[in-house]
Amino acid sequence: MTARDSQQSDDVTLDDLPLREDLRGKSPYGAPQLDVPVRLNTNENPYPPPPELVDDVTEAVREVAAQLHRYPDRDAVALREDLAAYLTSSVGIEVTSRHVWAANGSNEVLQQILQAFGGPGRTALGFEPSYSMHPIISAGTRTDWVPAPRRGDFSLDAAEAARIVGDRKPDVVFVTSPNNPTGGSIPLAELDAVLQAAPGIVVVDEAYAEFSSQPSALELLPRYPSKLIVSRTMSKAFAFAGGRLGYLAASPAVVDALQLVRLPYHLSLLTQAAARAALRHADATLASVATLASERDRVADALRGLGFEPVSSDANFILFGRFADPSATWKSYVGKGVLIRDIGIDGHLRVTIGTPDENDAFLEASKEVGR
Amino acid sequence: MTARDSQQSDDVTLDDLPLREDLRGKSPYGAPQLDVPVRLNTNENPYPPPPELVDDVTEAVREVAAQLHRYPDRDAVALREDLAAYLTSSVGIEVTSRHVWAANGSNEVLQQILQAFGGPGRTALGFEPSYSMHPIISAGTRTDWVPAPRRGDFSLDAAEAARIVGDRKPDVVFVTSPNNPTGGSIPLAELDAVLQAAPGIVVVDEAYAEFSSQPSALELLPRYPSKLIVSRTMSKAFAFAGGRLGYLAASPAVVDALQLVRLPYHLSLLTQAAARAALRHADATLASVATLASERDRVADALRGLGFEPVSSDANFILFGRFADPSATWKSYVGKGVLIRDIGIDGHLRVTIGTPDENDAFLEASKEVGR
Repeated sequence: MTARDSQQSDDVTLDDLPLREDLRGKSPYGAPQLDVPVRLNTNENPYPPPPELVDDVTEAVREVAAQLHRYPDRDAVALREDLAAYLTSSVGIEVTSRHVWAANGSNEVLQQILQAFGGPGRTALGFEPSYSMHPIISAGTRTDWVPAPRRGDFSLDAAEAARIVGDRKPDVVFVTSPNNPTGGSIPLAELDAVLQAAPGIVVVDEAYAEFSSQPSALELLPRYPSKLIVSRTMSKAFAFAGGRLGYLAASPAVVDALQLVRLPYHLSLLTQAAARAALRHADATLASVATLASERDRVADALRGLGFEPVSSDANFILFGRFADPSATWKSYVGKGVLIRDIGIDGHLRVTIGTPDENDAFLEASKEVGR
Repeated sequence: MTARDSQQSDDVTLDDLPLREDLRGKSPYGAPQLDVPVRLNTNENPYPPPPELVDDVTEAVREVAAQLHRYPDRDAVALREDLAAYLTSSVGIEVTSRHVWAANGSNEVLQQILQAFGGPGRTALGFEPSYSMHPIISAGTRTDWVPAPRRGDFSLDAAEAARIVGDRKPDVVFVTSPNNPTGGSIPLAELDAVLQAAPGIVVVDEAYAEFSSQPSALELLPRYPSKLIVSRTMSKAFAFAGGRLGYLAASPAVVDALQLVRLPYHLSLLTQAAARAALRHADATLASVATLASERDRVADALRGLGFEPVSSDANFILFGRFADPSATWKSYVGKGVLIRDIGIDGHLRVTIGTPDENDAFLEASKEVGR
């Protein structure tokens, strides 16, 4: 292109394009990626991978790199076997590769679930506030979103939830446990009530399960083999957010269904190899979970001591209030070099638990920000 | 799960699940992944990455692996800059990162295009036979698929194509050039006629562009800045099928539109780093293109000499006939240790151009297979 041509191409705006009507005026999803000293905004594990893991990932990549000219194993069987072994040993429920499916982050797992079981003319229901990608991925797959409430303290009223599910009959129900961004887990007996009421699929999003004191919903799979899907991620406790690996456990038939909608070869050779290497270091990586849980409790206590109202959390983050203008307070934190998350909940902000030093910096800043 | 529980979960079939009706009875897309000596079925580059590339990819991964606990750059800006530089130098059209978008394989790029510009109530049109993922991804995004014909010799009749496009007014038109699985490219003047007739988006799928004697459709972007999207992949000439990196060039507004539908953090830290490393070795990797083009012509001549009818190809594969029973002949090739592709075209099979030895093995087998 000449300078003039380039100008023409650059002059085209979204309004000049035949964009779908429902996308007009929308903004891309995503937390601000700001370069500040203390980043506590996306619920990552603050501890970098140990050197042995870096070495092992690097070696695993070197081994497969000579085959980069070939497509990867389309079904990622070896990786799914390793994920199944991890679930079996950590949850105590025996699953095999046939019960496990994986994709580029749990977002892609959820998108595939909605492509198979949601879509036009179907509905998905979630209890808000919860993970904001659930309604966004529903919209992306043209699944009608049905918001349902939580209690004022953000806990889930299971009896009321079951009543709403039985009443609205959604094709897909999302239950996030621990719930993001509020932090509470749902006990299995209460989840059981929701599963009993659901006419279709129930996705229990356990992105933060490793931090939780509650048992995994996977224990209910034998009772609800044609309803229950448990989704997981390596982005949080596993300290593998950069590797983008989400997965799920369900009946083998669910995995068969997702293979009808997945894009072929969706998981690269590198992703499969690196995730397997990271899984070999699960014990080392997950050793940080206890530290983070105790830091979480320390931060919650300190916030309470400062006069804030932290919501009880079973995850690696804390929702806390009250702020007259959360957006202004968020900016005030950023000004002090601390990036937390304005999640759009009235009067509240969310902070990810970092290293003790990062948490101290956050608490120090908390003394000075406006309410 | 106890053995009995596992049995229950395993007993669930697709019929027990609330699968979308349009998915019932479908099979997952994908060529058979068979372990035979000569694999000429998925149009990969047969030459493994050179040792320098393997070293560079490995080193790049080592460098970023210490940050695996953090989410990757959501907009993959550095990678898009590198892709833009590659396009600018190889095509001779100046583009920047703002004109380029990337995803996990061109399949994900195409899916995002259809999520933004297709979907329920909208139509996508393609000239068949062509890349079979176009209608499949259309179905996956609930975009109505409109098949349009090619000539008997599989070339595109541009005047007729423009007439059909003007008549049917599809929201998205796919033109594959070189066309997979038939091999022919479309000259720019003919493509211009299709673009002129199109009311909406025209995706020129240039997965095999590096093998082609025709200029890139990118030359037409200045004339059609609100219509044209050129999609590319690193899976073919770039010998990076295992790395899963597809990309596109278009007006910056198109990139803005795709950011409304992309899943956040869709490209891993490893994918971004490894693809950038591979791009640094473009000259070495693409040196194989001339060898493959000359082998393609040798194989076509030899097939003709054996009494087959190869379709003229501008890519790294050849569609050839005639077979009374392509499926039986395909099996006969597999029996001789040569995996080619039964693409479902009456009387024809498709062979990927391999190394000279692989091509010799294919030609040797061709002397003995049934027609």
